Amino acid sequence: MNWPDLATVQAMDMADPLRACRARFTLPEGLIYLDGNSLGALPRDAPARVAAAVEEQWGSDLIASWNKHGWIEAPARLGARIAPLIGAGEDEVIVADSTSANLFKLITAACLAQPGRTTILTEPGNFPTDLYIAQGVAEVLPGRRVRTVPAGEMAAAIDGNTAVVVLTHVHYKTGAKLDMASLTAAAHAAGALILWDLSHSAGGVEVDLGGCDADLAVGCGYKYLNGGPGAPAFLYVARRWQERLRSPLTGWMGHKTPFDFGDDYAPAEGMKRFLCGTPPILGMAALDAGLDSFAGVTMAEVTAKSRSLSELLIAGIEQRCGEARFTLVTPRDPAARGSHVSVAHEHAWEICQALIAHGVVGDFRAPNVLRLGLTPLYTSHEDVWRAVEIIAAVMEAGAWRDPAYAARAAVT
Amino acid sequence: MNWPDLATVQAMDMADPLRACRARFTLPEGLIYLDGNSLGALPRDAPARVAAAVEEQWGSDLIASWNKHGWIEAPARLGARIAPLIGAGEDEVIVADSTSANLFKLITAACLAQPGRTTILTEPGNFPTDLYIAQGVAEVLPGRRVRTVPAGEMAAAIDGNTAVVVLTHVHYKTGAKLDMASLTAAAHAAGALILWDLSHSAGGVEVDLGGCDADLAVGCGYKYLNGGPGAPAFLYVARRWQERLRSPLTGWMGHKTPFDFGDDYAPAEGMKRFLCGTPPILGMAALDAGLDSFAGVTMAEVTAKSRSLSELLIAGIEQRCGEARFTLVTPRDPAARGSHVSVAHEHAWEICQALIAHGVVGDFRAPNVLRLGLTPLYTSHEDVWRAVEIIAAVMEAGAWRDPAYAARAAVT
Repeated sequence: MNWPDLATVQAMDMADPLRACRARFTLPEGLIYLDGNSLGALPRDAPARVAAAVEEQWGSDLIASWNKHGWIEAPARLGARIAPLIGAGEDEVIVADSTSANLFKLITAACLAQPGRTTILTEPGNFPTDLYIAQGVAEVLPGRRVRTVPAGEMAAAIDGNTAVVVLTHVHYKTGAKLDMASLTAAAHAAGALILWDLSHSAGGVEVDLGGCDADLAVGCGYKYLNGGPGAPAFLYVARRWQERLRSPLTGWMGHKTPFDFGDDYAPAEGMKRFLCGTPPILGMAALDAGLDSFAGVTMAEVTAKSRSLSELLIAGIEQRCGEARFTLVTPRDPAARGSHVSVAHEHAWEICQALIAHGVVGDFRAPNVLRLGLTPLYTSHEDVWRAVEIIAAVMEAGAWRDPAYAARAAVT
Repeated sequence: MNWPDLATVQAMDMADPLRACRARFTLPEGLIYLDGNSLGALPRDAPARVAAAVEEQWGSDLIASWNKHGWIEAPARLGARIAPLIGAGEDEVIVADSTSANLFKLITAACLAQPGRTTILTEPGNFPTDLYIAQGVAEVLPGRRVRTVPAGEMAAAIDGNTAVVVLTHVHYKTGAKLDMASLTAAAHAAGALILWDLSHSAGGVEVDLGGCDADLAVGCGYKYLNGGPGAPAFLYVARRWQERLRSPLTGWMGHKTPFDFGDDYAPAEGMKRFLCGTPPILGMAALDAGLDSFAGVTMAEVTAKSRSLSELLIAGIEQRCGEARFTLVTPRDPAARGSHVSVAHEHAWEICQALIAHGVVGDFRAPNVLRLGLTPLYTSHEDVWRAVEIIAAVMEAGAWRDPAYAARAAVT
């Protein structure tokens, strides 16, 4: 692709089948937000949805809301809404807790279901919480260990000792997308389970858990699902595994009959056994609004738009910012990446801060990566084009050398 | 106490040092809400606080809010706000996850810290999630078992094999309050740790974790702390134990340096090691407003008001509703109960439904208990007096016999 002029990218936006979706979000004026892969933007209806949960439900109907407003069914109801975005059945997904807690539930359950297999297999450089939780499981369950193998050697490394393979579908830093079908098949060929972390893919690119015959998955509510800061997460368990797995987090909401208040735990049927404590209703209201933004949209359209945006961004960085010597970290093959583009640069931190000051919000990932997220529902080709022009200008002027951009923040 | 006339109880309210606190809440007109022990009422400022988190923070400042609006420090900041309500140091409490998940963290950590001790000791009829989570820990950690002993026999049952004693300070059903000081001393005499579940006491009655030398505690954000439906919960670890305990839920937010994105887990210092996933910011905003309602209030005042209300309620049920043959479940000694009053009746379910229809909201706990919660910050003596008159009228007329009140709801 040759670097187009503005009129050309505006024509691309006019032809975009998702162009109407942008109006479903409130985006600050004058800001090009390329960080929806870290925190999705505010759905236009989220304030009213959350206010209704606070004022009409909590405030007016109080405790009766558990029945009257269906609070008790919110985890299953939202799970069923996420299911079609990830190729799952409506009864295979439930919303609960954090991604980290859900990883703990499913890795532990997978290990306990296969007592003869001792290894949790994952890749080095996976998202930290995936690695940390696997290590936590290995500390709790005697005889288990975590083994890390680069993704490219993973299929060959899965063996008769592997209890569960824990992989992130789209890598948080590089944006590389693993081949879910072939890696799932490799796990199954060795008799192992596979758990996919969809945090950086759900809502950003097509995912086909069912078609790939995946066993387990978890994912995040606050990135491409636009559920708000610290939104409740989700988990998926293939129907065939639901009755065979038990969550170690045996909280009362996962009980067969929680309101009998009996002394002995008995897991609920289906996905409800993977619930733990009382569901966070205000966060669920915001996530519900985030899921509304997918109304009438197919994940094939989302994927096509994501590719179109990332092709444009990569072309721009290479053709308009060539002097800046960015190194493309994300795979060049569009089929092998998710919906963000990462580039490496020795001064990525300062460049990221300078771009924010110039109205382009991406983020930094240690030690040297600048991430630029493309959210197909609200990022336009014009956004990408303008962002590239700003990056080019910032790099050409060396604006990032201003010492003001060197100070590190608590959260990067 | 003889049953007073309305003018007398109105005089009690006039003399109540907490009378101004009622205006800090939005309470529906015409409703006597005696269920704040299940879901606290809406703090007047909560809608604005949550709206600011949604619109100004998430909507306008987006990802920058983690630093700009202190989102990342919210768990520790809110923990420090809860600490004085429960007799803890500001660096001994943190807000995270659900009560159930926090129980799992601390019971597991206590067991792992004492490998030679195999028993988790608790009482039969404890709140189900406490029992279920203990059972879940015993399923995951080999060789551990859950032993239940009635509260009255607890002190004598703690022995050299007890890893941790798990008790609820105020019983969810009976309202009985255990003697935290003597039971903690009994646990320590046997070399065991003790974990207090404060779900039904924090914010409702005085708690002195420090004075009692308690080791561990968890509690709920949505009852007397008024944090909203499914609010984030809290956990407490005495300073002396913080560095010796490790959470099994080793999520990235509990890491020493989460934004270094390293591959190996290393626990944060202090309470942050008990964090797991990304904090639920919208729920935290509501909880913040809930904690504001304690401004300028001492827990001694809260306890005194709670006793005054419960004495009045018990007198009313016994003197005005004597024909109804309610059995008092809650201890008659005010020092031995929390801030709710429970009575047993064969038809408690139907009576509870009839009372709701007549504007008095309490709740039912299987198989035969009617619970009436008294929230010192917003329940008035007049509320209690009027509730008693309504209960007396409903019972005298047999209004609860209407078949409409027999239908069971999903959530009781």
